[in-house]
Amino acid sequence: MRVDLIICGDYVLTMNSAMDVLKNGAVAVLNKKIVDLDAAEVILEKYSSPEIISGEGRVVMPGFINTHTHAAMVYFRGLADDLPLKEWLENHIWPAEGRCLSPEFVYDAVELACLEMLKSGTTTFSDMYFFADSTAKAAVKMGMRAVVCSGVVDFPTVTGSNADDYLNSAERFINDWSDDALIRPGIAAHSAYTCSPDTLKKICRLSDKCFVSRQIHLSETEWEVSEIISRYGKRPAVHLDNTGFFDGRSVAAHCVWVDAGEIDILAKKGVGVSHCIESNLKLASGIAPVPAMLKAGAAVSFGTDGAASNNDMDLISEMSTAAKVHKAVSKDPTVIDAATALRMATIGGAKALGMDGEIGSIEKGKYADLVAVNLKKPHLTPLYSIYSHMVYSLRASDVETVMVNGRIIIDKGRLILKDEDEILKKAGEWAQKVSL
Amino acid sequence: MRVDLIICGDYVLTMNSAMDVLKNGAVAVLNKKIVDLDAAEVILEKYSSPEIISGEGRVVMPGFINTHTHAAMVYFRGLADDLPLKEWLENHIWPAEGRCLSPEFVYDAVELACLEMLKSGTTTFSDMYFFADSTAKAAVKMGMRAVVCSGVVDFPTVTGSNADDYLNSAERFINDWSDDALIRPGIAAHSAYTCSPDTLKKICRLSDKCFVSRQIHLSETEWEVSEIISRYGKRPAVHLDNTGFFDGRSVAAHCVWVDAGEIDILAKKGVGVSHCIESNLKLASGIAPVPAMLKAGAAVSFGTDGAASNNDMDLISEMSTAAKVHKAVSKDPTVIDAATALRMATIGGAKALGMDGEIGSIEKGKYADLVAVNLKKPHLTPLYSIYSHMVYSLRASDVETVMVNGRIIIDKGRLILKDEDEILKKAGEWAQKVSL
Repeated sequence: MRVDLIICGDYVLTMNSAMDVLKNGAVAVLNKKIVDLDAAEVILEKYSSPEIISGEGRVVMPGFINTHTHAAMVYFRGLADDLPLKEWLENHIWPAEGRCLSPEFVYDAVELACLEMLKSGTTTFSDMYFFADSTAKAAVKMGMRAVVCSGVVDFPTVTGSNADDYLNSAERFINDWSDDALIRPGIAAHSAYTCSPDTLKKICRLSDKCFVSRQIHLSETEWEVSEIISRYGKRPAVHLDNTGFFDGRSVAAHCVWVDAGEIDILAKKGVGVSHCIESNLKLASGIAPVPAMLKAGAAVSFGTDGAASNNDMDLISEMSTAAKVHKAVSKDPTVIDAATALRMATIGGAKALGMDGEIGSIEKGKYADLVAVNLKKPHLTPLYSIYSHMVYSLRASDVETVMVNGRIIIDKGRLILKDEDEILKKAGEWAQKVSL
Repeated sequence: MRVDLIICGDYVLTMNSAMDVLKNGAVAVLNKKIVDLDAAEVILEKYSSPEIISGEGRVVMPGFINTHTHAAMVYFRGLADDLPLKEWLENHIWPAEGRCLSPEFVYDAVELACLEMLKSGTTTFSDMYFFADSTAKAAVKMGMRAVVCSGVVDFPTVTGSNADDYLNSAERFINDWSDDALIRPGIAAHSAYTCSPDTLKKICRLSDKCFVSRQIHLSETEWEVSEIISRYGKRPAVHLDNTGFFDGRSVAAHCVWVDAGEIDILAKKGVGVSHCIESNLKLASGIAPVPAMLKAGAAVSFGTDGAASNNDMDLISEMSTAAKVHKAVSKDPTVIDAATALRMATIGGAKALGMDGEIGSIEKGKYADLVAVNLKKPHLTPLYSIYSHMVYSLRASDVETVMVNGRIIIDKGRLILKDEDEILKKAGEWAQKVSL
């Protein structure tokens, strides 16, 4: 049988429920999907293909899934650091957004964000920001899979004047993108402190009606918790649950300050949790109780948040930082072991987004979103445990081949769809305007 | 005037006490040392040189200084992870050491460690392990600067049978290496729980007599603190201070569980503190009170510890992790700002080792230990603050040129003294024996 492509690896990490690892394995790809996987000699015997990617010294695994970001904020990377949140937002980020935000800005910025994510092995990201249409277009142009959420708040911004405005835009956006091969549209409620219960309920109705997910920032800071308690007499996750937010497919980013009762709600309602450790650390927001969430069975995944507060979009580094930080915080070196961390970054991300039937592992019938990394590096030598290396020692620069939807996007570490330098040059031009 | 080499950079980060940054700067190197630095046009006018390294899109800065490691343990990278400390040591690391340790093992392993450190921009490391002679020889072969400490404990190991044995070896080692251009010999007391007060005093006498530094692991775990209190009725730093350990040039690694009184001692006695955040996180040892140590004026620097507990030797990642983690732990996003973190990784490391007269910054008369990194990367784009990028966004793979003692060791990201693949191959061979 003829397939489109065969990719081989000294190790194929399937990340399926049995965590099967194929030594000297291969994956056959046909019409965007994985049609078979097995020992390389079996696959090469069974299938013919115009393209066979050699696996020597390489690991093939599912692409990483970044479940929470504001991709366009990559243009604010390092604009202001080491500041209290309020000063950072009010004196730096918001004024820069005020000067620059436009569909063109977001489109160009998201191209850079996609470039950075792809080169570090991320094949799917979930985004909330302004001008969702630009984000979706740029992701498609860059060949990346994305859940793009159109945002809703109760106050006027550059894209609307009130909740109904944003809801109308969101519905239009969802209709426009409902059939795209790479884009999954969604709705983002900014937060429980910027969306009234009434607005949250409207978001739920629209997302239920359109069969799309709803996403929200949840308990990122201690301030948010006390604010919501003072407004509604309940902790944020309880409050959101009461609005019905968690009764449909939902994703909650951060979840830093959730207590045991809230963790129970998140787990029972199957809410996708996006743990954004590096952003939470850098903004001094706190450290989310991830081991407790995992123990409760919550669908915890990783997000980079925006590059303005991180300062990169590298999911490998999120995974490594999270696996280490939680050990010290829990005083237990066994929590979030390497295999768990790698699951959270792949199939766990897919589960959080409600897409684990389609992506997140190397299994027959799933989309071919694959990454191959080069093991022949000093920092990956010697090799005793493949999961350990992928979590504690891997670097973004080890990523050599990235495939999304069966199409090779990064080859030998370089973008093949477009000139990388052009994307960097455009960023330099916009930066002039940002830092005015 | 003719010099050996001129290296240019869009930015030259001097890391001198005024934190001068030269835009379009250049550094002139003659006979191992920095003889001048200024605007590139001034330097290029003033000096002729057979080798001029272009600075376009590059940052030149002092090489990173890794103040605590066990370089040879790189051969145990990922051998065992996610385990309680006792099980990790007793069931995995010690048996592997028992099977393998020899001068040849250490020599070969340190070559790999140096390769990894050099490629991630580290030019000096401070080491304590078995077979110091092998470590020193391998570092010299790889062109790297190192403080190599000959170890002392009170019990028998593969290299000796009692404290006097180790002290004799240490004295011999110090005499053998006292005139080397790259190696600074020293003595390592393993810890206050493996060295009696009498042994510690002998170490102090020998180090004073030979004018070398003494190093020790200090308060890495809570267990150590209670153990020392139960044995001596004092906290570890107080106990060490009473032995006179801190009255000469000394370096204390970890310092996780030091209280305010102990921080005062470390600061007042000018003890070099090596903060090993990634190892401390991964082994769940705890998080050292670095902001308090910095506030007290202690000489805090970064160390990777051994790669068996990290799992890499990348100081860039230590710096980035530390700058972020302490913000969350302190609930203050302003602590360890980017400039502070970069100082700790460069001139701070030199201060901790008592070598700030010779290395750690780009100043006339200092040794030319320099690093050039490539800024033309998606994850370093756009650029608003150079310190921010060097700490929060830089990756080891951005390092292109590394010079130690005026000699280029890494060029275009590759080792030029030796075949990298040969070093990796040797590691693979030893790994067979390690994992028997």
